[in-house]
Amino acid sequence: MIGLTNYAGVMESLMNSAEEKQPSSPLTNSWAKKQESSKSQKPNGVGGFVLVHAGAGYHSESKAKEYKHVCKRACQRAVDQLKAGALAVEAVAAALVELEDSPFTNAGMGSNLNLSGEIECDASIMDGKSLHFGAVGALSGIRNPVMVANRLLSEAQKGKLSAGRIPPCFLVGRGAHDWAVSHGIPPCPSDKMATKFSLSAYKRNKRKMELAEKMDTGHNQTKKRRQSSENENGSGCLDTVGAVVVDLEGNVAAAVSSGGLAMKHPGRVGQAAHYGCGCWAENACNMNSYSTAVSTSGSPFLASEDRVLGGVIVLRCCRCVEAQPSQNFQGILVEFLWSHTTESMCVGYMSAQDSKAKTHISRLPPGTVPGQSLAIEGGVCRLMGVVE
Amino acid sequence: MIGLTNYAGVMESLMNSAEEKQPSSPLTNSWAKKQESSKSQKPNGVGGFVLVHAGAGYHSESKAKEYKHVCKRACQRAVDQLKAGALAVEAVAAALVELEDSPFTNAGMGSNLNLSGEIECDASIMDGKSLHFGAVGALSGIRNPVMVANRLLSEAQKGKLSAGRIPPCFLVGRGAHDWAVSHGIPPCPSDKMATKFSLSAYKRNKRKMELAEKMDTGHNQTKKRRQSSENENGSGCLDTVGAVVVDLEGNVAAAVSSGGLAMKHPGRVGQAAHYGCGCWAENACNMNSYSTAVSTSGSPFLASEDRVLGGVIVLRCCRCVEAQPSQNFQGILVEFLWSHTTESMCVGYMSAQDSKAKTHISRLPPGTVPGQSLAIEGGVCRLMGVVE
Repeated sequence: MIGLTNYAGVMESLMNSAEEKQPSSPLTNSWAKKQESSKSQKPNGVGGFVLVHAGAGYHSESKAKEYKHVCKRACQRAVDQLKAGALAVEAVAAALVELEDSPFTNAGMGSNLNLSGEIECDASIMDGKSLHFGAVGALSGIRNPVMVANRLLSEAQKGKLSAGRIPPCFLVGRGAHDWAVSHGIPPCPSDKMATKFSLSAYKRNKRKMELAEKMDTGHNQTKKRRQSSENENGSGCLDTVGAVVVDLEGNVAAAVSSGGLAMKHPGRVGQAAHYGCGCWAENACNMNSYSTAVSTSGSPFLASEDRVLGGVIVLRCCRCVEAQPSQNFQGILVEFLWSHTTESMCVGYMSAQDSKAKTHISRLPPGTVPGQSLAIEGGVCRLMGVVE
Repeated sequence: MIGLTNYAGVMESLMNSAEEKQPSSPLTNSWAKKQESSKSQKPNGVGGFVLVHAGAGYHSESKAKEYKHVCKRACQRAVDQLKAGALAVEAVAAALVELEDSPFTNAGMGSNLNLSGEIECDASIMDGKSLHFGAVGALSGIRNPVMVANRLLSEAQKGKLSAGRIPPCFLVGRGAHDWAVSHGIPPCPSDKMATKFSLSAYKRNKRKMELAEKMDTGHNQTKKRRQSSENENGSGCLDTVGAVVVDLEGNVAAAVSSGGLAMKHPGRVGQAAHYGCGCWAENACNMNSYSTAVSTSGSPFLASEDRVLGGVIVLRCCRCVEAQPSQNFQGILVEFLWSHTTESMCVGYMSAQDSKAKTHISRLPPGTVPGQSLAIEGGVCRLMGVVE
């Protein structure tokens, strides 16, 4: 799957999802040709598939239930949208709103506080159909950053602004906040976004920092800094949330949202807002018969670190036809996976054919070292549609 | 060169630079091996090569002299640094400071004003040796944004902050400003960064916008927006500045700086600040015997536009040895090019062996349409060093 099996130290356990039990059939990579064909080939009905994650980091057994719950709700939100006829990009945004609204994830409500005790969020979304992208960075005072990213994307799709100005696709800080409010997204007082947990983590981290800086006094600070390789600021959680979706037309979309690192400098923007870093979605085309959507979590900029902590969810799909093809029957084969170098990652997935989402906390095997080992799990799902 | 010759409609005119007149010699792609070898292989002496550009856009004949002058000064600044023993990353920052200080470029001093009449700058820098990256977005009140990006890069190279915190590599807005000032970079009042030209362009653009919006009243605005394909806001200049450098140790670095689009929304961050978009630099390694540095100008997000306006400067290099090799003699072969789809692009280049920089305004041939045609020009230069 996705060629990741070449990675050193792979632990692959392809999960047997319920969807796999459907009768298997030979595949044809005929997506691009189908995409080209007339609109009469468009599958009748609505449906699709969603895969979400609530963070790659560390999930205690005691909180496992909460994380699974939020993944379940996020999948349901996306599937509700898909069933109502929404495109992949709308469904992925709906899943993200649910993930952001949970006080247990580091996104939207309950995000990590920065050095000044403020919440500044990053989020981005990409539509595989148009390849349009929307992102916000260091955004304060908005409950659902992904809604602003999504609005930037949809506004950009309308074309140029007055006097031929190019619409923005990435806004940061105060400018992003003001743009959101002027586009009807209500502001949210910062104190309503902080939780008891995020506030107590802030106080704890602040004390740790002060203690560490006191200990540094009189020493060679630079040397100290280099030696300090442990991430001591709290949980070591880089728990960005994300989702990838395919709709029954075969459009893919991806989104990501994060409160960023605890005690980060104000104005710091992380990978969740970076074009080509936090998420990617690209429909099949003449050159490539697969549609692909990816959402990442972690720190891609730590090239020189000995431990790289992160996670990713990936979805790719192509059209499939029956062995004895009927003109009125075709489907989409969806392959999906999650992978992480962190201790654990909580995921959920669901197709519009399922009655409820499956959720799972993937963990590195006991005895392995986070940042030096990798877990990969995944599955296959087939979406069926009737061609008009 | 760099495989770009496959591009439809290429107009390649490989320039005969003075450097090419040196006796040619067979090349060996033995960079990676040389990099691995002991420090005694390190060339003795200082030197290197720099390529800069002062914007891909439209350069009137009347202003050609000014643009050439600033490119010349920027090359000289980088070469002065290289001659003083600086690494590529320091030299590339020095070139950018000169480009930003010119009131004729859309970077630092004289940058485009945004919708609110403020200057907000983007800049980034990448060190090919460490692969570290530093960037600022929507930064106001700092004369040289590239200095902040460079400082972020060098601070990150020192390792983690107190209590194991990961240092930032990308800061935006107020947070970026405050970080810069707390790291000794002096603030600069915004009114000192605006020029007579940028202020009058702002007033002109404002009037155009108001007129365009008045004309839209009573029409279907969305339809109007889609139809408005001309970039009417002033010069159509996307004149980001950039530079790429290789030092005599074979380290490469790249940097880019931009005031962004005229009349952009406050908080808008453009490609100059984006990781992997505005610039890239990567030293040779075991997997790749070429070092590469790239700096871009333009709008990569306009995938759906029929006209893509932009420019790029590229440098790649590998070690070369004489046909009759002497243990005490080796060099670096530098291939460089510039390419643009805009009407013109002003570039300058210089090696530490040259007494002065060469400058050039590259133009699309008469009759070709900007955004639909591409010009590529370049050259070759050999840097010689004596191995200790």
